[in-house]
Amino acid sequence: MKLGSKIGILGGGQLSMMLNNQAQDVTLEVHSLTPSKLDPASLVSPHTFLGDPKNAADLLAFTQNLDFLTFESEFYNAQYLKKTLCDFKGMIFPSLDCLELLQDRKSQKTSFEKNKLDTSPFIHTQNINDIENFFKQGPLVAKQRFNGYDGFGTFVLNTKTDLENFLDKNHQQLDLFIFEKKIAFQYEVAIQAARSRKGHTVFFPFVKTIQKNNKCFLVEGPEKSTLAFLQIKKKIQKYLDKIDYVGVIGFEFFKTRNSLILNEVAPRVHNTGHHTLDSCDVDQFLIHLLCALQDRLPLPKMHAKAFTMLNLIGTRDGSVEIPDLQSGRLYWYGKSNRAGRKLGHINFIGENKKALTTLALKELKRWKI
Amino acid sequence: MKLGSKIGILGGGQLSMMLNNQAQDVTLEVHSLTPSKLDPASLVSPHTFLGDPKNAADLLAFTQNLDFLTFESEFYNAQYLKKTLCDFKGMIFPSLDCLELLQDRKSQKTSFEKNKLDTSPFIHTQNINDIENFFKQGPLVAKQRFNGYDGFGTFVLNTKTDLENFLDKNHQQLDLFIFEKKIAFQYEVAIQAARSRKGHTVFFPFVKTIQKNNKCFLVEGPEKSTLAFLQIKKKIQKYLDKIDYVGVIGFEFFKTRNSLILNEVAPRVHNTGHHTLDSCDVDQFLIHLLCALQDRLPLPKMHAKAFTMLNLIGTRDGSVEIPDLQSGRLYWYGKSNRAGRKLGHINFIGENKKALTTLALKELKRWKI
Repeated sequence: MKLGSKIGILGGGQLSMMLNNQAQDVTLEVHSLTPSKLDPASLVSPHTFLGDPKNAADLLAFTQNLDFLTFESEFYNAQYLKKTLCDFKGMIFPSLDCLELLQDRKSQKTSFEKNKLDTSPFIHTQNINDIENFFKQGPLVAKQRFNGYDGFGTFVLNTKTDLENFLDKNHQQLDLFIFEKKIAFQYEVAIQAARSRKGHTVFFPFVKTIQKNNKCFLVEGPEKSTLAFLQIKKKIQKYLDKIDYVGVIGFEFFKTRNSLILNEVAPRVHNTGHHTLDSCDVDQFLIHLLCALQDRLPLPKMHAKAFTMLNLIGTRDGSVEIPDLQSGRLYWYGKSNRAGRKLGHINFIGENKKALTTLALKELKRWKI
Repeated sequence: MKLGSKIGILGGGQLSMMLNNQAQDVTLEVHSLTPSKLDPASLVSPHTFLGDPKNAADLLAFTQNLDFLTFESEFYNAQYLKKTLCDFKGMIFPSLDCLELLQDRKSQKTSFEKNKLDTSPFIHTQNINDIENFFKQGPLVAKQRFNGYDGFGTFVLNTKTDLENFLDKNHQQLDLFIFEKKIAFQYEVAIQAARSRKGHTVFFPFVKTIQKNNKCFLVEGPEKSTLAFLQIKKKIQKYLDKIDYVGVIGFEFFKTRNSLILNEVAPRVHNTGHHTLDSCDVDQFLIHLLCALQDRLPLPKMHAKAFTMLNLIGTRDGSVEIPDLQSGRLYWYGKSNRAGRKLGHINFIGENKKALTTLALKELKRWKI
């Protein structure tokens, strides 16, 4: 590994913060491009570059002396990055082709279908009749193609009225949405994969994810590894080889009785992988960077039999009271409090996931956020 | 816990680096006072204050807005700190009284004896006859009272000639030394304790430490807990209560067939506790800071059955070749290479300490340092 390799991250939120924090003591020099001195990454990094990743001049200045470039978000327009960074001499990971493919739900879903990754049936059309016909088979979910997250840009259409209201509002911009068949599932499951520049792929454990108000609230794991899980890993590996993905990528599934239906992927480190900071001997943040630096990756091994990760989400604007630390390992992002905002998370590891989740929920009661 | 409490650390070496790195994502704001931008703490902290802790003006400027102050080294003269910081409004931990007591091997050893912590018999005298008489009972170790570390300032006097040579050189400065009876031991053992501002004391596991050229080379653990170990913990707890110690403190012992003989203590986070970064659910760095912030401390629990920590020590001046990361978790301090310098460490955790140590020694062969 090259001593002092300079890695740039577009964005300065908590993902960038943790990429900084996990890597800056491992011979790497991590730089973040972020608009504010108060962003989470700025709080932990001596190499914050103040600027807007969406501003070409800032982006060019930031990338001037970097060896590598990566993102904490898939929402930076890939075409803009391709154009602006055409002379960048370092390595960009994941590639801008991958970013382009995956930042649009339409091309993302199409790529699942092409690569035999089971996903809910969907259509993309500007023909209202086609949408109404598709609805006759059952409830739908309309999803924004770009920039959707945590339920933002997602519309569940259970009834004919839901559909009519949606179409009334959006009939002039139907190109911006896809319509998926709503899946009846038991619960949601996620996994992070990491693939190196030479195609070595490793996996973190499968986890169960619990949402609250469309946001990840709690993650527990590991999920018991069944045949369905093993088969999915093989398919993911083939898929990542096919698109030549480099870095960490998060996969989110609907778990039905017999199978896993791929909901969506995030081409970056992922909230459902924050447990790896404490549950595994190498975490998703460090391994994301190693993907670009090394041909082969360390194989993540679990420290403990079970883990629970609890997101700390603001319930109001304004003041925060943080209790004394007692159990679990706190990660606090240093952001101001706002209702619905992810402010931090706590990792618990131990013998039994139900017990850890009980402990996590008890711990949450001590917080005033 | 107060959000954004400002904690200052005197010194910017690797201990300060790790204090920064482990705390800066836990609602705390850690500042380091260090002379160089290239010091390890500077590489990971946005709050480096360039200056010399031994310069009163720098110290005063640095401490102006801090809530807490601590040290990465026991070598800052306590009397100078007391005088310079007499108006400091925050909390200093450990207290400057503790620092004064423990930075002098004479008062340190005397305090062991007073508190029934078994230690090797010693004398402090400027009377050469007394020293020669003490030598008649067996080989001695002369130790500098102040600023000794890693064998520096330690002189083993096995033979009459060793003693004569030592006295020839040092007869005019005998006040600066103590003379200890040399202990015949099986191996060396260490433990870290942490005590909160309200007297809550917790322990990390006992470890075996292996030295090479008088430097800690490798640590493995946990040591099997025997009655002697349990009794020592009780004595340590009483001792820390007696001196009202706040923070992490490292204890180093000679293990003989039936007992533990206390060699020395370091009133700070300690190299033999670096394993806690990966072996336990709370590490020595974070808990050191929590000692000042909280009344009660989290109880450190081990993640794994066994651990090994390998120090990466420079074997020559100049270039370093770092292999790709494969096993273990690397901590690299970002220092330039120099023969004998501690450049980093790797933590291994797993089922069996012998297997981990074998792995560690194999890993070391991949390094060119």
